[in-house]
Amino acid sequence: MAKRRRDARSTDHPRRVKAHLKASKAGAAPGFLQYVGAHEAAPTLATLIEFGANSGEFIETKFTALEQGREFKPTFGNYWLNLHGLGDTELLKLIGRRFRLHPLVLEDILNTQQRPKVETYPGYLFITARLMKLDDDGVVDSEQISLVVGHNFLLTFQEKPTGTFEAIRESLRNGESQLRKFGTDYLVYALLDKVVDRYFAVLEQVGERVDNLEDEIIESLDPQQMQEVQYLRRSMQALKRGLWPLREVINILQRDDADFFKDETQLYLRDVYDHTVQLIESVEALRDVVSGLQDIYLSLQSQNMNTQMRTLTVFTIIFSPLTLIAGIYGMNFDNMPELHWQYGYFIVLALMGLLGSGLGLYFWSRRWIE
Amino acid sequence: MAKRRRDARSTDHPRRVKAHLKASKAGAAPGFLQYVGAHEAAPTLATLIEFGANSGEFIETKFTALEQGREFKPTFGNYWLNLHGLGDTELLKLIGRRFRLHPLVLEDILNTQQRPKVETYPGYLFITARLMKLDDDGVVDSEQISLVVGHNFLLTFQEKPTGTFEAIRESLRNGESQLRKFGTDYLVYALLDKVVDRYFAVLEQVGERVDNLEDEIIESLDPQQMQEVQYLRRSMQALKRGLWPLREVINILQRDDADFFKDETQLYLRDVYDHTVQLIESVEALRDVVSGLQDIYLSLQSQNMNTQMRTLTVFTIIFSPLTLIAGIYGMNFDNMPELHWQYGYFIVLALMGLLGSGLGLYFWSRRWIE
Amino acid sequence: MAKRRRDARSTDHPRRVKAHLKASKAGAAPGFLQYVGAHEAAPTLATLIEFGANSGEFIETKFTALEQGREFKPTFGNYWLNLHGLGDTELLKLIGRRFRLHPLVLEDILNTQQRPKVETYPGYLFITARLMKLDDDGVVDSEQISLVVGHNFLLTFQEKPTGTFEAIRESLRNGESQLRKFGTDYLVYALLDKVVDRYFAVLEQVGERVDNLEDEIIESLDPQQMQEVQYLRRSMQALKRGLWPLREVINILQRDDADFFKDETQLYLRDVYDHTVQLIESVEALRDVVSGLQDIYLSLQSQNMNTQMRTLTVFTIIFSPLTLIAGIYGMNFDNMPELHWQYGYFIVLALMGLLGSGLGLYFWSRRWIE
Amino acid sequence: MAKRRRDARSTDHPRRVKAHLKASKAGAAPGFLQYVGAHEAAPTLATLIEFGANSGEFIETKFTALEQGREFKPTFGNYWLNLHGLGDTELLKLIGRRFRLHPLVLEDILNTQQRPKVETYPGYLFITARLMKLDDDGVVDSEQISLVVGHNFLLTFQEKPTGTFEAIRESLRNGESQLRKFGTDYLVYALLDKVVDRYFAVLEQVGERVDNLEDEIIESLDPQQMQEVQYLRRSMQALKRGLWPLREVINILQRDDADFFKDETQLYLRDVYDHTVQLIESVEALRDVVSGLQDIYLSLQSQNMNTQMRTLTVFTIIFSPLTLIAGIYGMNFDNMPELHWQYGYFIVLALMGLLGSGLGLYFWSRRWIE
Amino acid sequence: MAKRRRDARSTDHPRRVKAHLKASKAGAAPGFLQYVGAHEAAPTLATLIEFGANSGEFIETKFTALEQGREFKPTFGNYWLNLHGLGDTELLKLIGRRFRLHPLVLEDILNTQQRPKVETYPGYLFITARLMKLDDDGVVDSEQISLVVGHNFLLTFQEKPTGTFEAIRESLRNGESQLRKFGTDYLVYALLDKVVDRYFAVLEQVGERVDNLEDEIIESLDPQQMQEVQYLRRSMQALKRGLWPLREVINILQRDDADFFKDETQLYLRDVYDHTVQLIESVEALRDVVSGLQDIYLSLQSQNMNTQMRTLTVFTIIFSPLTLIAGIYGMNFDNMPELHWQYGYFIVLALMGLLGSGLGLYFWSRRWIE
Repeated sequence: MAKRRRDARSTDHPRRVKAHLKASKAGAAPGFLQYVGAHEAAPTLATLIEFGANSGEFIETKFTALEQGREFKPTFGNYWLNLHGLGDTELLKLIGRRFRLHPLVLEDILNTQQRPKVETYPGYLFITARLMKLDDDGVVDSEQISLVVGHNFLLTFQEKPTGTFEAIRESLRNGESQLRKFGTDYLVYALLDKVVDRYFAVLEQVGERVDNLEDEIIESLDPQQMQEVQYLRRSMQALKRGLWPLREVINILQRDDADFFKDETQLYLRDVYDHTVQLIESVEALRDVVSGLQDIYLSLQSQNMNTQMRTLTVFTIIFSPLTLIAGIYGMNFDNMPELHWQYGYFIVLALMGLLGSGLGLYFWSRRWIE
Repeated sequence: MAKRRRDARSTDHPRRVKAHLKASKAGAAPGFLQYVGAHEAAPTLATLIEFGANSGEFIETKFTALEQGREFKPTFGNYWLNLHGLGDTELLKLIGRRFRLHPLVLEDILNTQQRPKVETYPGYLFITARLMKLDDDGVVDSEQISLVVGHNFLLTFQEKPTGTFEAIRESLRNGESQLRKFGTDYLVYALLDKVVDRYFAVLEQVGERVDNLEDEIIESLDPQQMQEVQYLRRSMQALKRGLWPLREVINILQRDDADFFKDETQLYLRDVYDHTVQLIESVEALRDVVSGLQDIYLSLQSQNMNTQMRTLTVFTIIFSPLTLIAGIYGMNFDNMPELHWQYGYFIVLALMGLLGSGLGLYFWSRRWIE
Repeated sequence: MAKRRRDARSTDHPRRVKAHLKASKAGAAPGFLQYVGAHEAAPTLATLIEFGANSGEFIETKFTALEQGREFKPTFGNYWLNLHGLGDTELLKLIGRRFRLHPLVLEDILNTQQRPKVETYPGYLFITARLMKLDDDGVVDSEQISLVVGHNFLLTFQEKPTGTFEAIRESLRNGESQLRKFGTDYLVYALLDKVVDRYFAVLEQVGERVDNLEDEIIESLDPQQMQEVQYLRRSMQALKRGLWPLREVINILQRDDADFFKDETQLYLRDVYDHTVQLIESVEALRDVVSGLQDIYLSLQSQNMNTQMRTLTVFTIIFSPLTLIAGIYGMNFDNMPELHWQYGYFIVLALMGLLGSGLGLYFWSRRWIE
Repeated sequence: MAKRRRDARSTDHPRRVKAHLKASKAGAAPGFLQYVGAHEAAPTLATLIEFGANSGEFIETKFTALEQGREFKPTFGNYWLNLHGLGDTELLKLIGRRFRLHPLVLEDILNTQQRPKVETYPGYLFITARLMKLDDDGVVDSEQISLVVGHNFLLTFQEKPTGTFEAIRESLRNGESQLRKFGTDYLVYALLDKVVDRYFAVLEQVGERVDNLEDEIIESLDPQQMQEVQYLRRSMQALKRGLWPLREVINILQRDDADFFKDETQLYLRDVYDHTVQLIESVEALRDVVSGLQDIYLSLQSQNMNTQMRTLTVFTIIFSPLTLIAGIYGMNFDNMPELHWQYGYFIVLALMGLLGSGLGLYFWSRRWIE
Repeated sequence: MAKRRRDARSTDHPRRVKAHLKASKAGAAPGFLQYVGAHEAAPTLATLIEFGANSGEFIETKFTALEQGREFKPTFGNYWLNLHGLGDTELLKLIGRRFRLHPLVLEDILNTQQRPKVETYPGYLFITARLMKLDDDGVVDSEQISLVVGHNFLLTFQEKPTGTFEAIRESLRNGESQLRKFGTDYLVYALLDKVVDRYFAVLEQVGERVDNLEDEIIESLDPQQMQEVQYLRRSMQALKRGLWPLREVINILQRDDADFFKDETQLYLRDVYDHTVQLIESVEALRDVVSGLQDIYLSLQSQNMNTQMRTLTVFTIIFSPLTLIAGIYGMNFDNMPELHWQYGYFIVLALMGLLGSGLGLYFWSRRWIE
């Protein structure tokens, strides 16, 4: 497994680091629209949900061709247009013109390595956040979700379908749900709440890896573990890079100087804000735990060396005198009386045995031999 | 004991970490009420205390059935309703409707892994704090206590009975006590004061463990000690996670923009605030001490290695020349005059003895042998 | 000495840590007055100094009985009442009633482990600070001094007589001194200036210990030194815990929103404030130096190990080939021509000598042997 | 390669450090103009671009002599004067007089080791920033670019031509480009955007070196790698020293109290600001990764030592008893029955073989031999 | 050299640390004037420079006796009185009365270990700063310079002549210089600019020492180098202690609420302010470099140990089997057929040679022998 993990690191991970850095429109002229991301652009799929507070006021449409969108006129009070896949630049330009989006907004939607932020434009708010996930190799990854929040409409843009918001759609289809009654600003809250929930889920899995690593380290040491520590640090950095600005985003929404959110919804945003604060504290606490793991690793490594040094010392101390005695009675002096004793050899053997086991006992009593 | 502690770590502790992370209503639709906590929900028990400033104005009622609560009408000026156990969601909803509590408040009461906070709602303040304790294994644990503070009433919600506030109840029963005269806001102060006192108690016990660990480390090293260090760090993180926001909570109460506290009571809140600041400084100081412990551990470990290396070196230096001499006189050359000397053997033995004890003396004088 | 110091640590020091933590009125009902401190309460001794700006206006009285105080009426414009020893709770209550002190003030005076602070009450300021000292074992210790500052009176409360303020009393007795002219607010400045001077004195002694420790470490290593480092860190924490809030206290006094200090005196407070800032920087600098000491210790420890390893390696390299040669010529083959050479033995001895001294010379030239 | 890199460090790099420090006009009287920089002053080359919003309104002039500049009168609404090379102090003085630049501005333009900053002067803003690059040895280096921003003119000063802004010039030549329509303030944005893009490019290359270093360290250790770590840290410090103040500069421009930027352009500045924040987070994250690399390096180093210690121990344990046995049967006692056994020798050899391979097997099963 | 440096540390340096701490008027009554400093008080020397904006308006007087000063009446608009040496307390008192200086100002002038600060008094500003220098042993040292800035006069006080400001005096003597035209506030700027330049000079020298130390460490390790690291840290602390408050001082002067500086001069102060910020960043960067040096030192130390351990292991592995073989053929069994082979001895010798050189080759190929 160690092998696989190392491969994962040396191929996938650095690529993502670079992608993160490359994620500027470096080199392109300002105003030129192009998808910039770590993945290939997926084909675009648009879903429009129109809804009113009353039970029957609900229409859901899936656009497959550009023309369908051109003819659209809203039927009920609120509507939510969701786009998956950002490959169709033409469609985005169309939407941009229709909703009078600023060119920088379109650029930021396509440039999917944005830092979470909220920006006020005349008539709408522009919000980006990061949808955290663990990919198949257990690597912390994230996608961008962009929200354009108007007074009675909501546009969302995602890199590809993730299923995260399916429960919200289901809830919208239910005529009695709070979502139907509270309008688009509450819908924004519900989406952000889901985004934050994803952090909890990912953080929990990372926390489990930390616990497992701690168990592994205590079991037996392996240099891979230090790389795993490094890897976990990068994961927590990724979480941090998504979370810190997200907290700021939600804080700004909560103050809402531009009146896009009803007072009632602001209470709910305060709740999401509390969750981000709690998440941040958990990430910080986990960082401390990981640092501690490294300290334990190094002290256990040092402990291992100590044990081996002890073994070496014990063996040297026991065998050195025995070997010397054997050497002495192997000398060829003419006059060595002991050599001619009847039981000289056996006496010396017994002496060696006594000395050896005496030293062994001594070290055993001092717990140098276990 | 080391074994037991390790088991405690690998079973109880991680579970709590995960519980801390799981403590979001992740996956549930907003507005759906359910108890979320590390323990099983205990059966609900409600106690109502009505009191006035005058000596006789005191009634204490224990509700065991839902209906009793429905019919309740306050008799005297102030009342305090305390609930233990959060399993009875129906009762909570009833209370919610009766006191016009916001759905988010009910959610936060049930979701018992909240970060301490205070929130202003029309007509009442909502406060959560954490009651610290050490469980049977000496693990730092905490429970949530939620307070709803109105102008003449106080609702408190705990996960299970803890006995912490029994002294306050006793004091209320006493017609002459300050608590009776000062009303519900002073009662809130008294409760928070008890919450803070619990931190002092827990911190003292953690401090004692730190002192004991220091003694143990100086006595003799054991890899378990590094894990104990890690464990103590987690404990102090738990204290920190409860304390920092609690200080903020009390700071906000002290400013009290919403006029729930009398000027006189604010002086008392300032006093509690000072205590939280003192606690925070103590936790920080203890963290430093624990870091220092780790440094001592590592330097002693290194010291041990040094000592063993020295022993090894001394033995090598003493025995190498002796063994060489024995080897030389074990050579089989025809012409080795010393071999034929009458006392050659004894001279060489004496020489070896001299050399060995000379080297031994030398190292003893340089304190390499102790 | 090492032994004594360790005993000091394991008996005196932890006790003080716990005392610091215990220093809450935990368990006691609010409003119940009792002395809480690390030492036994000393008998109370009250000294009253009345003075005016004119030369003769000076009366000094020592109260020994409660009744004397009851009858007191101030003669001149200003007076300073100083109390040593906080055992006499009754006297304190009397003073409390006489000067209309808030119950929390009396509590804080008796609870002698307060964090330095200043609190504004109607008609007076309440200030606490810590008087630093080194006890007989060189342990950094501190006592509480509480000041109640009215518009023309000053009450001070100390745990026991320390002699720190004797010079100020002497100066007051002198009719021409500035203290007599400037009134009680300048007297407060003079007292705080003395408190700050004590920090300089203690810090200087701690700094001397740091310098000595550095010399000792460079001389020769001893595991006690790491404990001394830990000890010095605790000392600097103690200084820090006293200093940081004291700076804040003086900063607040300097702004003096409540008009207890004349403009002229505020200039002097600014001077004391500068001193606290200077002290804080010195403590921070000393912390860095101590951290550096630890690094030096660890690198010297590693250096020692290096030296021993080198010695071991040199001995192994020199003796291994010699022993092998001796072993070879100790073999019993029938046909070993060298054995029968006339000077074979001497040639081999010479060869061994050459090889051994050659290797020795080589290592000497590479400075592996010193 | 290691050799080359070390040379690079010991020659180029320190020089730049010193240059950074020398970069004050230390010793010169205030008001005395002289080029101060790490490179030799290049000959000055001035390019003037005049443009209006309409398609044909565009003139580009290259000045080669001082007189040409003296006679210049602007033809269209906006113009941009760019200077490469700061050796011609006279020309600078002329420009200074012409545009009424403050002497300190001229000084700062020539003193090319400025910290990025923006300063408001009557009639113009003065901005300095740093153009990052990697020199031929891969060393992070930077040049100064100074901008004087008036209401319809822009002066830029660079140490030497870099080609960074060529794309902008090309875009200006195109009559339909946004740059032509939006005027000089948008041009300033475009230049700053390019400056920020350079940081992305350099950071990406540094990030690649970090990834390569990580691979190298895991492959095999080399003391050069620790120097590379030190080197990377210095690189990131250089980036940080350029970035932190640049963020502040753009933040100030964005607020633009002095009305040099149109509202529309401020939106674009906000975008650049977001990029600097993202860059800063990436630099911080990379610093963490580099620290982690060092930890991995040290733990692998320790691991290596462990492995060698183990090998040493295994050899000592296997050979000590075998050598002892050989020594015993080399003793010369008269009465050693085993010596006279027919197969004594072979039995002992077999015994040695068994013991040796038994021990070998034991260590192999415990994974001490790999 | 190592020896000399160590002596320097153990004698000069600690003394200065203590001096720094002693630098309070601890023990002295407030208002009692006395020189407090690390050096002996030098004899006082006063120089008065009177000057006006016109070319001829310049008088320079050196006072040698107290009486001369008493009779002085200013001739032109501005004058600058500079004092070297603070031994003459009487003269200072005279100046104090003449310029109505507050007693605290005189105290601070004499107490030459002040933290840099600026204080507003009615009619004048009081500024202290530190003049950095390296003493003969290369130890970072500093002197105090105090400035009293009035609306048309400037008093400066230094511990002893340093020559730092000679260039400014020379410039003042020149009737055409900016200094003459701009008045005393610009003169203050010029002096502070020189003070800041000194920091650049000292920092450059410290930076050079850091670079040299890095080269030395890479060359070969020496425990003295860790002490040099500690020493460099103390030097940077000294710079920091002077710089941080100096930046604050200049920041306050720049805002200049009390109108002592003309708008024009404030631009120049902003320039000095930028320099202090740049210096602070350089000191911080240098601190990082020094920390990195320590890491390199420790990793190289560990590397050394690794190399020695490797050598030891290689020698053990090569010689153990050879010695065993020699031991085996030294056994005295009756029946050892190999002993009687014609070429047994030579075969065994060849075998040993092959085994030894084979192992040697193996380790050489694995780069364990270099």
